[in-house]
Amino acid sequence: MKISLKETAAKLLSADSLVITSHVNPDGDALGSSLALYQMMIRLGKRAELLIDDDIPEAFSFLPDIAAIKKPEAESYDADLLVMLDVSRDRIGRVAEKCRAPILNIDHHITNDGEADFLYLDAGRAATAEIVYQLARELAVEPDEAVAMCIYTGISTDTGNFKFSNTTPFTMRAAADMLEAGAKAHIVSEALEQRSYQEVMDKAKAMQTIELAFDGRVAGIYIDNALYETIGSTEGFIDTVRIIAGVDAAVLVKEVEAGRCRISMRSKGMDVSRIAAAFQGGGHIRAAGCSIEKPLAEAKEMLLQEIGKAL
Amino acid sequence: MKISLKETAAKLLSADSLVITSHVNPDGDALGSSLALYQMMIRLGKRAELLIDDDIPEAFSFLPDIAAIKKPEAESYDADLLVMLDVSRDRIGRVAEKCRAPILNIDHHITNDGEADFLYLDAGRAATAEIVYQLARELAVEPDEAVAMCIYTGISTDTGNFKFSNTTPFTMRAAADMLEAGAKAHIVSEALEQRSYQEVMDKAKAMQTIELAFDGRVAGIYIDNALYETIGSTEGFIDTVRIIAGVDAAVLVKEVEAGRCRISMRSKGMDVSRIAAAFQGGGHIRAAGCSIEKPLAEAKEMLLQEIGKAL
Repeated sequence: MKISLKETAAKLLSADSLVITSHVNPDGDALGSSLALYQMMIRLGKRAELLIDDDIPEAFSFLPDIAAIKKPEAESYDADLLVMLDVSRDRIGRVAEKCRAPILNIDHHITNDGEADFLYLDAGRAATAEIVYQLARELAVEPDEAVAMCIYTGISTDTGNFKFSNTTPFTMRAAADMLEAGAKAHIVSEALEQRSYQEVMDKAKAMQTIELAFDGRVAGIYIDNALYETIGSTEGFIDTVRIIAGVDAAVLVKEVEAGRCRISMRSKGMDVSRIAAAFQGGGHIRAAGCSIEKPLAEAKEMLLQEIGKAL
Repeated sequence: MKISLKETAAKLLSADSLVITSHVNPDGDALGSSLALYQMMIRLGKRAELLIDDDIPEAFSFLPDIAAIKKPEAESYDADLLVMLDVSRDRIGRVAEKCRAPILNIDHHITNDGEADFLYLDAGRAATAEIVYQLARELAVEPDEAVAMCIYTGISTDTGNFKFSNTTPFTMRAAADMLEAGAKAHIVSEALEQRSYQEVMDKAKAMQTIELAFDGRVAGIYIDNALYETIGSTEGFIDTVRIIAGVDAAVLVKEVEAGRCRISMRSKGMDVSRIAAAFQGGGHIRAAGCSIEKPLAEAKEMLLQEIGKAL
């Protein structure tokens, strides 16, 4: 059942005990929004537990009260209300079976599956933390520095630190209020941009393979299987070519096993979903992907040929 | 003579013709703040010229009305007022000698030298564009999309896109208003993060030299003279090691000529100005620099020894 923000606040106020949770593989919005709500509930005198069925990445250790987050190791959890933030029910891990309380779901993902007793969904908000910011007002809880840091982190995470096109005037004003309440922008951004030594060196290796094509309108990173086997993750690699001046389409081709390549594409103008479709892949105009069952050199040639046709 | 914001607006309103300028080597705040003021003055029916004595970096071609900016090629410029934004008089190039009108200086740099007839200085503002935003209100000019893009760009530039510690609630609220007026956050950030192919490949080469020391508490990039000679600029290189998890001090050592090294340091905790001082350099606790008259290997060893003492 869809409910309003006011009704959401009322549900929270009427519960004496709550289990709060968010998605596995937690990011800054999952952690920030659920920690902020947890702290607010404690301040309102509720009994609350914060359960996330996954490891918490080291980078978030700066978040106030992060140690309050537990894995659902007990047999079961009794509560008046299970609050799921920034997630649908299928991604909360073992919390789903261990806590059978009525579910209040608070989310900003348009893809939310609606599997909850009560759902407050606002897909116009850039982050669930923005909704928690609104709830603070409804609940008449003045965010302290700790809550402000958590909400700011959620907002910063899901907007790429105010770079993505989901950033709204509301986003910036919520962030302004959180800075005023004591959030430290530079601490959050320093933490979020942290990378492991391994990740940095992997990226350096991959950047050696950067090549331009079509007079610089296409830039690619080409990782053969030998190199791929030494690399932990290729997350963010495509950004190193996407930012090259004059580049329209950025591509990342990685030979994930000998003779099979996985391809990611980003564009500033051309429709890369059509390139992907030519290889039975999919995506959007500006972000798409596909696979080609060929060794790196051949896959690269086939891909560039297809891009050449589109240019 | 220091004047108030109201008096600054009055000076602008009472002039019929203005020359507007900013600093050589112009950045997003120089261009954004002067373009925004220029457009507002034109809308108020003034005659205005926008002069900057330098090339305009290609990356800023997205700024509305950027083509209005001219180099001071004429013999002289008559105007009722010379408005210098984001700059002191010694960095406006030939504009200083070619326009002899009374000077109105609008700036946010605490280091402003005060060489102006009228000075509005607010060192509490993160960007001169924030002051232009305030002036728009004083002048009762509603920012249109073009002015909003320019002001947003200035603010984004000088706050590292809201990452630096100079980011205030006022900053975020001004940015919110500019988004509301039509500024596009993702277009600005895409433009500002653009790098040339050469810059990206130079960085990739330099990243090959990354080394950790002292159990990962120190990370360095070490560029010998041979590599240095092939590199255009090392701007931003130190950030690639600063972001490594667990790193307190990040160092960049470059052998700028055979037997002479220039050193930059950034820290999250330790006082790197003391390390720099040991080599007759200077700086702040978290950002400092010095030179060592030695080849790379020796300079590196001397530097790490000094850092080791401090740890």
